[in-house]
Amino acid sequence: MIIQLDPQTPSSVKDNIELKAMTLGFKMTEVKTEQGNLYMVGIGKKEFDIRILGQMEGVRDIHRVSDAYKLVSRKWRVHPTIIDLEDGVKIGDGNLQLMAGPCSIESEEQIIQTLEHLKANGVNVMRGGVYKPRSSPYAFRGLGMDGLKMWHTLAASYGIKIITEVMQVSQIEPMLPYIDIFQVGARNMQNFNLLDELGKVDKPVMIKRGMSGSIDELLQCAEYVFSAGNEKLLLCERGIRTYEKAYRNTFDLNSIPILKEKTHLPVIADPSHGIGLRAYVEPMALAAVMAGADGIIYETHQIPEKAFSDGQQTLDFKESKALIQKLNATANLKASF
Amino acid sequence: MIIQLDPQTPSSVKDNIELKAMTLGFKMTEVKTEQGNLYMVGIGKKEFDIRILGQMEGVRDIHRVSDAYKLVSRKWRVHPTIIDLEDGVKIGDGNLQLMAGPCSIESEEQIIQTLEHLKANGVNVMRGGVYKPRSSPYAFRGLGMDGLKMWHTLAASYGIKIITEVMQVSQIEPMLPYIDIFQVGARNMQNFNLLDELGKVDKPVMIKRGMSGSIDELLQCAEYVFSAGNEKLLLCERGIRTYEKAYRNTFDLNSIPILKEKTHLPVIADPSHGIGLRAYVEPMALAAVMAGADGIIYETHQIPEKAFSDGQQTLDFKESKALIQKLNATANLKASF
Amino acid sequence: MIIQLDPQTPSSVKDNIELKAMTLGFKMTEVKTEQGNLYMVGIGKKEFDIRILGQMEGVRDIHRVSDAYKLVSRKWRVHPTIIDLEDGVKIGDGNLQLMAGPCSIESEEQIIQTLEHLKANGVNVMRGGVYKPRSSPYAFRGLGMDGLKMWHTLAASYGIKIITEVMQVSQIEPMLPYIDIFQVGARNMQNFNLLDELGKVDKPVMIKRGMSGSIDELLQCAEYVFSAGNEKLLLCERGIRTYEKAYRNTFDLNSIPILKEKTHLPVIADPSHGIGLRAYVEPMALAAVMAGADGIIYETHQIPEKAFSDGQQTLDFKESKALIQKLNATANLKASF
Amino acid sequence: MIIQLDPQTPSSVKDNIELKAMTLGFKMTEVKTEQGNLYMVGIGKKEFDIRILGQMEGVRDIHRVSDAYKLVSRKWRVHPTIIDLEDGVKIGDGNLQLMAGPCSIESEEQIIQTLEHLKANGVNVMRGGVYKPRSSPYAFRGLGMDGLKMWHTLAASYGIKIITEVMQVSQIEPMLPYIDIFQVGARNMQNFNLLDELGKVDKPVMIKRGMSGSIDELLQCAEYVFSAGNEKLLLCERGIRTYEKAYRNTFDLNSIPILKEKTHLPVIADPSHGIGLRAYVEPMALAAVMAGADGIIYETHQIPEKAFSDGQQTLDFKESKALIQKLNATANLKASF
Repeated sequence: MIIQLDPQTPSSVKDNIELKAMTLGFKMTEVKTEQGNLYMVGIGKKEFDIRILGQMEGVRDIHRVSDAYKLVSRKWRVHPTIIDLEDGVKIGDGNLQLMAGPCSIESEEQIIQTLEHLKANGVNVMRGGVYKPRSSPYAFRGLGMDGLKMWHTLAASYGIKIITEVMQVSQIEPMLPYIDIFQVGARNMQNFNLLDELGKVDKPVMIKRGMSGSIDELLQCAEYVFSAGNEKLLLCERGIRTYEKAYRNTFDLNSIPILKEKTHLPVIADPSHGIGLRAYVEPMALAAVMAGADGIIYETHQIPEKAFSDGQQTLDFKESKALIQKLNATANLKASF
Repeated sequence: MIIQLDPQTPSSVKDNIELKAMTLGFKMTEVKTEQGNLYMVGIGKKEFDIRILGQMEGVRDIHRVSDAYKLVSRKWRVHPTIIDLEDGVKIGDGNLQLMAGPCSIESEEQIIQTLEHLKANGVNVMRGGVYKPRSSPYAFRGLGMDGLKMWHTLAASYGIKIITEVMQVSQIEPMLPYIDIFQVGARNMQNFNLLDELGKVDKPVMIKRGMSGSIDELLQCAEYVFSAGNEKLLLCERGIRTYEKAYRNTFDLNSIPILKEKTHLPVIADPSHGIGLRAYVEPMALAAVMAGADGIIYETHQIPEKAFSDGQQTLDFKESKALIQKLNATANLKASF
Repeated sequence: MIIQLDPQTPSSVKDNIELKAMTLGFKMTEVKTEQGNLYMVGIGKKEFDIRILGQMEGVRDIHRVSDAYKLVSRKWRVHPTIIDLEDGVKIGDGNLQLMAGPCSIESEEQIIQTLEHLKANGVNVMRGGVYKPRSSPYAFRGLGMDGLKMWHTLAASYGIKIITEVMQVSQIEPMLPYIDIFQVGARNMQNFNLLDELGKVDKPVMIKRGMSGSIDELLQCAEYVFSAGNEKLLLCERGIRTYEKAYRNTFDLNSIPILKEKTHLPVIADPSHGIGLRAYVEPMALAAVMAGADGIIYETHQIPEKAFSDGQQTLDFKESKALIQKLNATANLKASF
Repeated sequence: MIIQLDPQTPSSVKDNIELKAMTLGFKMTEVKTEQGNLYMVGIGKKEFDIRILGQMEGVRDIHRVSDAYKLVSRKWRVHPTIIDLEDGVKIGDGNLQLMAGPCSIESEEQIIQTLEHLKANGVNVMRGGVYKPRSSPYAFRGLGMDGLKMWHTLAASYGIKIITEVMQVSQIEPMLPYIDIFQVGARNMQNFNLLDELGKVDKPVMIKRGMSGSIDELLQCAEYVFSAGNEKLLLCERGIRTYEKAYRNTFDLNSIPILKEKTHLPVIADPSHGIGLRAYVEPMALAAVMAGADGIIYETHQIPEKAFSDGQQTLDFKESKALIQKLNATANLKASF
């Protein structure tokens, strides 16, 4: 059950509602979001007449939600959530949004070349890692805050937004002024403390599905952030782990139409990590659009062979340009259906 | 190594070639196909000067093939194989071919209604099961040969081709006059005896990927049929088994571009079994086209709720008609890239 | 629902029972087994008073079975099934039964050496393949019937029983006089026609779990054989396919205690295929005993490095001897609990 | 490559070694551990004469290690690492160590009852969660530091050690005085920042294998902690995610003998989470001992049905007592082999 309240509801009125809900068998959690909304989420299993609570003082709206996740469910919020990155850049408004860039931020020259490429091809969001989760402790772990600040200055001059991965709680505050979307990586999907803290900022958060994350678990992870106070959420399919060895991951396009039905949040597809082989990024990206993705995030680099990481799944700028044109044509056709 | 020979090559000449190949460290298998070609496939690991064999009497052509599978490899036959079902119906010629129909053949009325629907919408191949592999021995197992004969007569009157599953060796000969494509089901992908016997007929065979079949294993299964003498082969992606429970199978679109690069055989996608939920068949079918499928096979029934089997993943005719239009539009866009 | 009838029940009496069951909403299947029992299996979902049928003429016993599988369920037959191979060799009687031998039967010398080894160490059943399912059509496929006949003669002279794989229906009859247990391989778990035909012989059948076979599917496959008329069944865990690449298969010992609770059939464990690496066969075999296996089947060869197939997972005779001693000690401890 | 140095090696000497290694093509990382050792780990691929470095000043020992992980590899440290919890409690010394207790720490009464049970049965380590990672943000998340302090006081009075999960960096310091082993949960296996920080304490850390963690990834995660400075490490198998639905996880006993060969660290098995069903915890625990586990960690509760979490996989004290006796007998037999 989700109750929407007037944001200025006094404590005494909230207490009344909570008390009444408890007598009906529900444990209530108050959610005050960074975006200025006030909700009460009720967990319980009893059947009851929803009007008992609906008619109480302060209650603006009330919904039953049978899913295990509540605030991210489309059973409650039917209309899709639109993420507004300002300056006219929106995700989830029916247009396909592209996010492209290198795996790792490497140098000023690399950033500028990428920004030029994106600008020339109408891409509004640049991806790149400054904190890199690596299997081996001895591998390159990213340029950190220095890299991010440099990137931020350059990207701003091009009017291009930034999405980058945050790996731990202590990075959130320093990164906040320099990013447009926080990315939670696949390995951190269920890093619940990180999710909790990302619930306390007013910046969009994109959660990547874990390597063996179920669709329901991914939605519960989004619920963590939302219930901690941040409504600006995106989900990302990036491939799951199966027995097949012919590619890097099993890019699971099935999750896209299913997520679009279960949640009001935008769904992004990452074919680069998804299939993990450069030659197949294009067909999988196009397929993701037809499957219903709101956006595509992919890796591109001026010279993939020299990339610090993930070169084998990274497009060069020529391939990237061709992909963008085909993605736009595919999105147009899809929109016409 | 694959050697193509003149089909009338006398034994003595073949013996010479085999002997020479043996001295080079290769074990040779002679493959005489129903389609009139004569090959020798060599298995071995030694490096050698290919011209030693290439210049011998009777040798038309010779290729090194480093894959574990040989005759189905695109390293040997670069151009795509086109399956000609006659009357202008071809698969793999660059156009998208659709195959639709019920899970099970149930009755004359059902067949006629389906044929009318397909005819009206330009679909040239009808699918349907007369021998049904079922998890439980107590479930409906299909109408058998009587059903197939009735279906054949009706389909022929509409000029529509038939694809249906063959489950065992003893069914091949009786079914042969009544079908256009033999389907090998996912559970039988590695039923090697069945594959061997299907190598002895001159009718197309479509092999479905097993529930945990790897891409390389699927290609080896096709190699079984080809090396037993039948070049008319199609492969079919129909979903694999993973941990995710939100859908029936993990429809693995990644296999499509990878198969298209590894083999010259046409690749068909089955979104009905793939995702297994009616509401999501359409987006996954469209995605499969963008991923590069040569054809789509899906389930449709006049009243899916009353279907003997698989109703939950079967489209009604209205949904089917809408899908066909979108598939054709998507295929046209793809062809324009 | 399962009804046990007097084997000589006349048709008219059976018809009465079937008719009455139909009016209660059940579809009945008559099962007359090679072992001389007569059952009727009812599939239906209605609640009803079981005594209505229980009191009818000819009915010896009646049980409700809520599982999808019926005749193999322990909800019906509580006591474990004991497979009697004659000459005092039994499986499932509480003692651990070992089955060992090479992957492939290769030569008379190999057979004799193996038989000597088994005899010296008290092993009563020899495994070995004469028909080999191979991923590649160009690999060694076994010595066939000639090999089996030679093996049978030799094994009989040592008083040792034979278990070997049957791959297709046409092999059943020729093999029948020469084997003690038919093995259905993992790839053929759901080869339903093969299962049906194995239901018509009075020899034990061991079904191996498929590479992605679920525990419930394995039980349904056993139900196929039983409902076709053969009660002499064993199940075998041999590893499943997962994402992990550090070993050949994920030997799933979890299936053993679960199968032991769900079915009355004996459960055999195959650590050789299970983990697929020689160094780890011993610990996994011992673990399987503690998990509750009724028998262990493993691969041993006089010179594993020279085996025609599976050498990397095959023990030499010294390792085999050490394993047997430890297996017996472990089985003794387990029996004492 | 791993170089062991005298802990007091002056910087100038270390610089010389690093320089020389660089000229040989190696990137060196200095590792000074909380346990007082000094290592340099070299990452590189060049072949070279190891004596060039081995003969340099300050070098105590040098080893080539071909694995991707280095310090945790048994190719370097052949003898097993023994974790000393003081007061005679050791893990990895050849004896089986048991760790038991509830999923969640709930109350003083619960703690005391559990401690009494453990004391009476000779178990020296108690498990329990005070910070609980939960799929849903609305579920019970543990008693936190207050619960831990109470537990610590009580456990100390019984002379029983504590293992409990740490979920985030900020918890490490407060928890440090009250715990004997930090547990890193399956969801945090690749929480690299947490691993880095746990490298800076002188307390044992047990890392659980992630739900889709590969064996090599688990070892790399241990390498993170070791290379950050903490040599006191244990690994834990707790089940992986596969397609099978008959149990909670696929408890992967295969990992145990493989880990024992690849690493010198002790390996613990968790059958409670592994199979996740109470009735099967015992056979799987016994199997884990035979597979080679150095310890067993399992869940027990005075009244499992009333446990705050995981009741369905938790033994009551009677079952726990029976298990302990059988585990000890099994360990004794294993030790005799």
